Amino acid sequence: MNKALLLVAHGSRRPHSNDEIRSLARQLNARDDTSFDVVDCAFLELARPSIPDGIAKLAASGARHIIVLPYFLAAGRHVHEDIPAEVATGRQVVPQVTVEIAPYLGQSTSMLELLLSLAESTHRAVAS
Amino acid sequence: MNKALLLVAHGSRRPHSNDEIRSLARQLNARDDTSFDVVDCAFLELARPSIPDGIAKLAASGARHIIVLPYFLAAGRHVHEDIPAEVATGRQVVPQVTVEIAPYLGQSTSMLELLLSLAESTHRAVAS
Repeated sequence: MNKALLLVAHGSRRPHSNDEIRSLARQLNARDDTSFDVVDCAFLELARPSIPDGIAKLAASGARHIIVLPYFLAAGRHVHEDIPAEVATGRQVVPQVTVEIAPYLGQSTSMLELLLSLAESTHRAVAS
Repeated sequence: MNKALLLVAHGSRRPHSNDEIRSLARQLNARDDTSFDVVDCAFLELARPSIPDGIAKLAASGARHIIVLPYFLAAGRHVHEDIPAEVATGRQVVPQVTVEIAPYLGQSTSMLELLLSLAESTHRAVAS
């Protein structure tokens, strides 16, 4: 195993919200049409695993290149400071592994299409 | 003007985060390939306009059908209770207008594709 994706969410006191993230990671992991040999998730706070633990777990299972994807909509302290700090801690534990941070979710150029698709389908459902 | 889309975010103490939402709404509003005559945004708290004010503003400019789209990743109290309550308040102010709530962003079936696209492009940038 070589390439891994770590989906990083804030973490919530509501178990259901954390389970939504775990389900997303499982669905991504189940796909065989991606560049990633494995997909897992980690949390900045309030849930486990932590980001360093998530990185260490992927490295232990053979990952040599890890992309950390912040599942965040806005660029705040979490995205700019806290996640990079946690990733830096993870890198120290597994210096042989390359760990890169992807743009946070809200930066996706596909977000406009996704929002329109959701809104249009609701509009059609109401109109029909 | 008939159909409108109101993008609803949580609202932040960071002006930049609120401006990201306003920019998204402006970009959606500028498109001419959608069902919506106008797109605007509103905030649950910490920023303006409020959801009832956003609904009233759209109604005043001629909207008769409004889709409220929660720009939220997780199904929590905000999505299940607070936004519906604010929308109900808005409906009372403009009873002649139809106001429907779309699924929240995190429920989009396109989310997996969007995440993969972000992760793959980062992976390619690192590998190249």
